[in-house]
Amino acid sequence: MSDQKTAAILAIGDELLSGRTRDANMHYLAGWLTERGVSLKEARVVGDELEHIGEALNALRRSFDYVFTSGGIGPTHDDITVDAIARALGVPVIENEHAAAMIRAYYRERNIEVTPARLRMARTPEGARLIENPVSGAPGIRIENIFVMAGVPGIFQAMLHAVDSEIERGAVIYSRAATAVGMPESMIADALRDIQAALKGVSIGSYPIDGDEKGVTVVARSTDDNLAAAAIETVSAAMRALNVEPVLEDRR
Amino acid sequence: MSDQKTAAILAIGDELLSGRTRDANMHYLAGWLTERGVSLKEARVVGDELEHIGEALNALRRSFDYVFTSGGIGPTHDDITVDAIARALGVPVIENEHAAAMIRAYYRERNIEVTPARLRMARTPEGARLIENPVSGAPGIRIENIFVMAGVPGIFQAMLHAVDSEIERGAVIYSRAATAVGMPESMIADALRDIQAALKGVSIGSYPIDGDEKGVTVVARSTDDNLAAAAIETVSAAMRALNVEPVLEDRR
Repeated sequence: MSDQKTAAILAIGDELLSGRTRDANMHYLAGWLTERGVSLKEARVVGDELEHIGEALNALRRSFDYVFTSGGIGPTHDDITVDAIARALGVPVIENEHAAAMIRAYYRERNIEVTPARLRMARTPEGARLIENPVSGAPGIRIENIFVMAGVPGIFQAMLHAVDSEIERGAVIYSRAATAVGMPESMIADALRDIQAALKGVSIGSYPIDGDEKGVTVVARSTDDNLAAAAIETVSAAMRALNVEPVLEDRR
Repeated sequence: MSDQKTAAILAIGDELLSGRTRDANMHYLAGWLTERGVSLKEARVVGDELEHIGEALNALRRSFDYVFTSGGIGPTHDDITVDAIARALGVPVIENEHAAAMIRAYYRERNIEVTPARLRMARTPEGARLIENPVSGAPGIRIENIFVMAGVPGIFQAMLHAVDSEIERGAVIYSRAATAVGMPESMIADALRDIQAALKGVSIGSYPIDGDEKGVTVVARSTDDNLAAAAIETVSAAMRALNVEPVLEDRR
């Protein structure tokens, strides 16, 4: 799994931790990064608290190549992500002229008044670059290795698209899977342990379908698709030896 | 928001970070804890790496009253949660006799052989107590303030049910919400700021429906339902002053 950049996501918002809203960005980002050969190593969710956001951000930005944040960059009083990030980086918050111009242009085009609340979305940490927001005008922010994105999934995804060229591609991880319906995971566990021990450059994961007894999906992941395929062939043989014909798939 | 115990969840598994599997336990736990007056303060997701799991666990167990882990306690080689937790706590892993007895009884009842792979699920950190698993036999683990649970959602939820009496109830947070369909969040932002500034003991959150222009839900949260209701009345008046009739709701 070498030759890969690493990444983390920090999702911000009380509503994610109260159970009101279900985060959708982490799962989307995971798939998006995997396609680009970037390894998502950690996800964190914290509430709307300046210090807690800053602490998590500082830990993640020092440990991984890229950090994506989602949420807390809107026009209301509870949107404090920009302040938290500036504080964590030790830089002031400024009114960013380019961001203000983007927001003014967006609302004027739609004949909507540019209020102070809307211009609040032009505040950025000093030294930030902007991420285009084709959906709702107010831009995201890039500063150092941090991408500060909206929490609304449609906007988060549009912003990801806008920064696509800034992400350094790594070795793509190929995945092959074999599913044995009706076979308990614990039945194949010993065989998997031996197969994994004999293989280099392939990582074998085992996922029960719904508890131990309904079946198991075994996934082989490698930067070398041939190795992944060969591993799954070996796993399939072990499944057949236990009298279950596996269903094969290419998947993450 | 005082008088509340705090909690965190640590979800473990490469499959969550590759985009293969979408975590469902965090969202469920969030709602379950909120109903019990326990405040979920942080969620983390890490992959199947001993050190990374241990580091996250140590940070969370020192910061919060309860930590729930999900995933990585099955019979296969990639299930390393027990080892990671024991290492983080500085205790050995033992074969837990009670766990082994539970697993033997479960499989014998079903006329299924008790293999070494199945008995691997009886390994616990020394000093652990067990959490009953009515779904698939192999128990969860409680050690110190850590609840070690299965990743499969149906089993995670059954284990939560089993530890219900061990969770100290706190002051329940009441939530009231007003939704203004078609009103941009940025239109009500100034009013919300003033309302929040004038209120003590109520926290006001603002959530755009899908970007800034389709509408906004404002949620007032308080341990005093009367305060939450009064805050939402004030918010509703502000919405009406902007010519939108709000839709009211009790929700998280």
